[in-house]
Formats: sequence, C-alpha cells, structure tokens
Amino acid sequence: MAKAQESPVLAVDLGGTKMIIALVSRNGCIIDRHDRSTVAGEGPQAVIERMFEGIDYLLGENKLIPQQLSAISIAAAAIIDMREGIITTAPNLPDWEDIPLKSIVAEKYGTATFLINDADAAALGEHRFGAGKGLNNLVLLTLGTGIGGGIIIDGKLYTGSYGGAAEIGHMIIVEDGPECGCGNTGCLEALASGTAIAREAKRRIGKGEKSSLNELVKGKQYDITAEKVYLAAKDGDPLSLEVIAGAAHYLGTGVLNLVHIFSPDMVILGGSVAQMGDLLFEPVRQIVREKAFPLMAKSVQIVPARLGNDAGLVGAAVYALGW
Amino acid sequence: MAKAQESPVLAVDLGGTKMIIALVSRNGCIIDRHDRSTVAGEGPQAVIERMFEGIDYLLGENKLIPQQLSAISIAAAAIIDMREGIITTAPNLPDWEDIPLKSIVAEKYGTATFLINDADAAALGEHRFGAGKGLNNLVLLTLGTGIGGGIIIDGKLYTGSYGGAAEIGHMIIVEDGPECGCGNTGCLEALASGTAIAREAKRRIGKGEKSSLNELVKGKQYDITAEKVYLAAKDGDPLSLEVIAGAAHYLGTGVLNLVHIFSPDMVILGGSVAQMGDLLFEPVRQIVREKAFPLMAKSVQIVPARLGNDAGLVGAAVYALGW
Repeated sequence: MAKAQESPVLAVDLGGTKMIIALVSRNGCIIDRHDRSTVAGEGPQAVIERMFEGIDYLLGENKLIPQQLSAISIAAAAIIDMREGIITTAPNLPDWEDIPLKSIVAEKYGTATFLINDADAAALGEHRFGAGKGLNNLVLLTLGTGIGGGIIIDGKLYTGSYGGAAEIGHMIIVEDGPECGCGNTGCLEALASGTAIAREAKRRIGKGEKSSLNELVKGKQYDITAEKVYLAAKDGDPLSLEVIAGAAHYLGTGVLNLVHIFSPDMVILGGSVAQMGDLLFEPVRQIVREKAFPLMAKSVQIVPARLGNDAGLVGAAVYALGW
Repeated sequence: MAKAQESPVLAVDLGGTKMIIALVSRNGCIIDRHDRSTVAGEGPQAVIERMFEGIDYLLGENKLIPQQLSAISIAAAAIIDMREGIITTAPNLPDWEDIPLKSIVAEKYGTATFLINDADAAALGEHRFGAGKGLNNLVLLTLGTGIGGGIIIDGKLYTGSYGGAAEIGHMIIVEDGPECGCGNTGCLEALASGTAIAREAKRRIGKGEKSSLNELVKGKQYDITAEKVYLAAKDGDPLSLEVIAGAAHYLGTGVLNLVHIFSPDMVILGGSVAQMGDLLFEPVRQIVREKAFPLMAKSVQIVPARLGNDAGLVGAAVYALGW
C-alpha cells in the first residue's frame, strides 16, 4: 500500500524528434528527466531499444529498480488502440504499424504499463494540474510538427470506444487545400502546424518575395522553421507576420468548429507553435467572438497550456494513476 | 408513484415549418399526435399561442388534463441554454431571441417542463429506442432544411456545459464556400442540407443546363426542392445525380471529420434528406473507408435513423423521463 502512495511513475513522451523520459511524483512534479533523440528513421526496433536504454539510465541515476515504480506510462505521438495497447500507426514515426508497445514494455520491466496518445496525455495533464483544472469540458490542441488533440468530457478523457479519437489535426477545413501527412488534403494540420508555417514561408520566399527571414537563415531556405518565422515576425518582417496571420486564421476556423461541436468551457492551445502568443491567440479569439453562436462564444475561454512541454509527461502519469 | 409509471409525456417537436404535438408512452410509443403549421414568420408570440392551442386540442381529444401528464417536453430547432430553459436563437424561427420557453410553458400548464434541441432529442431517441440502442458513443445528423447534430458520449447526451453543443451543421469544411444561414461561409449545412441541394440544382438549371427537373416542376424553378431533385435522380436525370453526389461528397467530408474527432461506434443520418438512401450513404461510407485512419474507419457504422420523423418526439420524452 505504501508503495502506491509514494512510488513515482516513469513517464515517457515519445515524439517523432525526441523522447523524454522522466520520473513523475504523485503530485505531478517532474523529479528527474532525461532526453534523447528518437532517430525515428531507424524504425521501431531501434527506437524501442533506445527508449529502454534511456529508461535504464534514468532508473540507474536515481538508484531505482523497476519494481519500485508505480507504473511505466508512455505518451506517444501515434494513433493508439487503447484496448489492446497497440500503436496502430504514427505519421511521424515511420514503420510503426500495429506495434504492441504496451506488452513489449511490460514484459521487459515487469511493471504495470500504460500507453496513451501524447495529446490525450497533455489534455489529462492540463486538466489535472494545468490551465483546465476542475473544468468539465475542454479541448486541447498541441501545435507542433503536427497538430494533436485531446478532449475532456465531464471531467474525463474522451478517447472513443477504441482509443483513437480526438485526431483534431485531421479535421478538414479547406477541401482541396494543401496536402497533409495523413494523405488527405486541407486538414487543419496542413494549414496551421509548425510544418505548415515553415512550408508557407519557404514557398513565398522561393517565389522571390522579400523577407528578413532570408538573412536569419543566411540564405539557406531549408533552414526556415516556424520558430524562425516567429522571430522574424517579432522583428516586424511583413512576410512572416502574414504567414503567421494566415495560420492563425485557419487555426481560428478549426477552433470555431470545435466550439460549435463541443461548446467547451475552455480550448487550450499548447505545443511549440502556441509560444507565438498573441500573434496566434488574438486572431483565434476574434474569429470565435465574431463567428460562433453567442451562447458558445461567451462561455468558452481560449488559453495557452500551462504545463508547457511537461504536459504529456504529467498527463501520462495522471493516466497511469487513474487520477 | 403510479402516475410516474403510467402517465404519458406530452412531447412537442417545434420546427421552422411545422410543429408536431404528441403523447408518448413510457415505452417510447406515440399514443396520439397532432400537427399544425408553425407559421414562423408571425414571430414567437403567435407561434407559442398556436402551440398552446395544439396542446389543448390534443389533451381534449384524449380527455386528459395537464396534471395527468408526466411532463411536457419540447424539442425545438433552436440553440438552447439548457440551464435556463431559454431559446437563445433559432436560424429557422425568426425573432426567437432569448425566449424563456420552458418557464412560459411551465407557468401555463403547471407541469414539469423540459426544453431540448431537436437534434439532441433525436440522438436520445435513436440511442434509447432506435438504431443506436446500447452503444456507448454515437453522433447523429439530421439532414433537412438545415443540418442539426446530437452527440451521445458514454451512453449519455452531450450538450456542453450550457446546452448548446453539437451544432455540427455549422462545422466549416470549405472556407470561402457558399454562405450559410448562420452568417458564416462553407458550413456543412450550406453544402449538404436539403436547402443546399435545391439551391445548387436551381443554380445550374438557371444557367441553362438541361434537366428533367424542369418538367417535374413545370418550368417553375422556385418549386425545386431536395425531394424533387431526388425523384429526378431516381429517374436517371444526370444533373440531379450530380447535385446529390456533390452534397454527398461534402457530407462525407463532414462525417470523416466527426469520425476523426469522436471515433464513434456509429454515425446516424436522419431527416428528410437521409431518405435518399444509397445515393447519399454509399459515397459517405466510401469517403470514410478511404480517408479515415484504419482504427476509426473499421470501428464505425454509418446507418440511417430508425425512428424517422418520430425521433425528436420520442427523444424529448426520453429526456423528460431521464431514461
């Protein structure tokens, strides 16, 4: 009994670029953490081996054995069958098709093991310890390389009957819009993710439009990232400001749709792109104010995530401990 | 106690064109019904008077007094604040702005009174007695003059914290698409409702395109309705077939979005336009099969509503009795 009270959860945030492995206490604090690159291109076997090395390293550093953990809980950027603990597919993790990650980890460490979508975990984290504390209904979007979604209904995570729900990034809002990594066109992710922002800036500069971004990346257009577009925009670069305004407009339409569908108490925007602050939030709020039915517009708050990059780790722990 | 067991619910389905008033038994059967025109253009006061006349008539015919009812329950084509029992706005009921219909009816009849959105009621009806019996998660669309939505999560109606959720018809899927009655552009309702189907047929015929619809309405293009487009399509009219295929395509995109957001067990399509059967259902199912993530595509059924036009009445009773 004492163990369940005191033992930390070992949480993993498995992304397409890097994996973060952390010990999370029962009150939602990160006790220790360890990052390594995912090197997703090497395929699932190599990534899983690397994750094991990271887990072993963190346990060693903290003089822990697996039996002292409450659980291992993995938040992955993937579409997960939660009944079976299987990663069914993952746009940013090549060749992950029907990988039974939950049982692979459970067999390796002999601990209770949990597997959850990373944006679902972030929604749980923000609901339990962050911006959405105590609210009944909220929708969270993680804006990064892609766009993930998490939905809290009646204070509980909503995942559909199989665990794959809340793929909000793949809501189509501009039929015949740009192609998305999922194979469809005009998805929110293809219009308002960090990737979409960088792509649009590259496209316009490639056409010969002027931008201070060019100096920022010393003419190497392939070095343009959403973060650099934001830096240039903050310095007043007109092209960068327009590109961000364009993404914010589409994001506003996506959030408007979510407000009409869920009439939530709160929409939380997290992930690296949400760091753009008012450049992004103000247009989104304005679209909802102007275009949503008044009952819904006035009852929804649109706010930044509060746990930052830790939301997924904390949420993975929340999920494992059934808080 | 005996009363609650045996007394019927008096249910009202208040639409933009007609109102149906019915006695519904506790096992979901319609005991008696009475229709009259809404004549919405005369404004809320006149519509409410007409509803009272209809209620009084039906009670008289059945030799009932209000005290013998379990409740009066009104399903309205409106955006409702369920906490307050107020119709906040209603695109197809002109001048209904913040009308406290629940208390108006309760004061008139002295009975327990309930007020619910008509598509929410239809979702409850289909979940309790129709196509979605016993399922955990489902989304219902009513395809008629407009497009309404109802959401069942974990076996319960989801309405958001204030009662206005599930305005699925106002999900934007083609930014810069045709104008919608709500004031926005490119809403699902503006692309795939009965009104949208009739409008597109009129537009094309108005441009001089040939269609057997012309003979069907004896050259009076303003007489073209979605139903007549369907009749012409069944007879092989190419233009009508194309118009319906266009609407089905947009409907498919809307349903695809709902499948990615909710990963529901079932999507139910009801309302008059859903009577078009396979002309509508087959393209929708194909889009979901081809474009949804496999985990979600394989776990969702897309089916017609089973209670037909009674779903709203039955669902209003379900809501009143807390089934």
